[in-house]
Amino acid sequence: MTDRIYTAAVLVIGNEILSGRTQDTNLAYIAQGLAGVGVILKEARVIPDVCATIAATVNELRAQYDYVFTTGGIGPTHDDITAECVARAFGAKLVLNQEALKLFQAIFKPEELNEARLRMCHTPEGAALIANPVSRAPGFQMGNVFVMAGIPRVMQAMFDSVKPNLKGGPAVLSRTVACELPEGAIAKGLGDIQTRYADIDIGSYPMFRRGGGFAVNLVLRGRDPARLDAATQEVAEMVRSLGGNPTLE
Amino acid sequence: MTDRIYTAAVLVIGNEILSGRTQDTNLAYIAQGLAGVGVILKEARVIPDVCATIAATVNELRAQYDYVFTTGGIGPTHDDITAECVARAFGAKLVLNQEALKLFQAIFKPEELNEARLRMCHTPEGAALIANPVSRAPGFQMGNVFVMAGIPRVMQAMFDSVKPNLKGGPAVLSRTVACELPEGAIAKGLGDIQTRYADIDIGSYPMFRRGGGFAVNLVLRGRDPARLDAATQEVAEMVRSLGGNPTLE
Repeated sequence: MTDRIYTAAVLVIGNEILSGRTQDTNLAYIAQGLAGVGVILKEARVIPDVCATIAATVNELRAQYDYVFTTGGIGPTHDDITAECVARAFGAKLVLNQEALKLFQAIFKPEELNEARLRMCHTPEGAALIANPVSRAPGFQMGNVFVMAGIPRVMQAMFDSVKPNLKGGPAVLSRTVACELPEGAIAKGLGDIQTRYADIDIGSYPMFRRGGGFAVNLVLRGRDPARLDAATQEVAEMVRSLGGNPTLE
Repeated sequence: MTDRIYTAAVLVIGNEILSGRTQDTNLAYIAQGLAGVGVILKEARVIPDVCATIAATVNELRAQYDYVFTTGGIGPTHDDITAECVARAFGAKLVLNQEALKLFQAIFKPEELNEARLRMCHTPEGAALIANPVSRAPGFQMGNVFVMAGIPRVMQAMFDSVKPNLKGGPAVLSRTVACELPEGAIAKGLGDIQTRYADIDIGSYPMFRRGGGFAVNLVLRGRDPARLDAATQEVAEMVRSLGGNPTLE
């Protein structure tokens, strides 16, 4: 157990997310995975396929956090520019990665290994490959930046393969107390509990019930199970004291 | 028709998104709406419920783009700090908004109008309310920053109510050519078309078919319908020339 907090940012690269055409799901997947290994996700950004923007944002984030996870832009088409932009961010050359080349030579006949596919074998000089068990074209790690695919199934496989090697801390655990009291009625009691549990992050998330009316999920997150359980008990009791019927999830 | 390009950023505020607990869908909704009124969404950020971070990010984004849309953090609980942080960003006082107070006085009995609910009637001084036809607690506009709820149904209603007043340009239109050729086979032809149509944004998005194997959506976006249709025809012909069977969506 260590006091050092490890932090991360997610950088979603792609016009298709900013146009609303594609619903991103990679952020939530990475976020949950990071919580499991005790790495704190501090921010996420979504940016377009513009090299200057990608390079500048990679540099800003990698200086600020322990880990940066990028998704998108590593295919063979003209809009797949992440590798060259990450190379630019690091002031590194974009080179033909011999290990990636061997992977591709095993997949494609020589006449199929065209310029576009060879582009996918390029990484910044010094990068280590991230395996892609789904569709084989690899991602790569350059310094503290993990460059992954945008397709969720591929991204998930890549992230799962790098996750065990991340330095983190105790997993961030979560408890949920659901109830049907209005937020305005529980706000004071909840705030009082938050004040007494500075090490627990307490959030209140109202939602619509399908049958009509609001419900609220009170979510507690922390690394110390005993403290988390104590705070959760207090929240449940507070709900009960206000006439509510708390459900622990 | 104007040459002026109007730009926007989305700022998603909330620990629940960064923990992976909640899957954000507001970004895609706002993105699609902005495309419809010809406002270009340049970036999105997801940040935690930390006032200094919220204020600094609001200031960075509002200086850089025509519009900033924030989601989340305007309820009555202790983690709802967006209004005070936006006030801080603008160097404005957080004041009891008389119009919001009237709304709340119409909903709640005097004894129900507790401190937590009165918090929701506070806005930065000079803000204009954004109506909430779903659950009534309003959002607000301060300068070029639109502060909206996090609950999707409420956020959507708020966004829809401000959208008609945004200055934009011609709608950004979209065409999709779907095919089952591998990206590596079409990359060269697609890149050539992109080079000749600098005003059209062409993206290539591979996906898994349910039955197995890859398919690719080639998405073209632009403001000039004639140019867009011409480029789409060229993409479809290119796919056909490579033995593919293009489907226009």
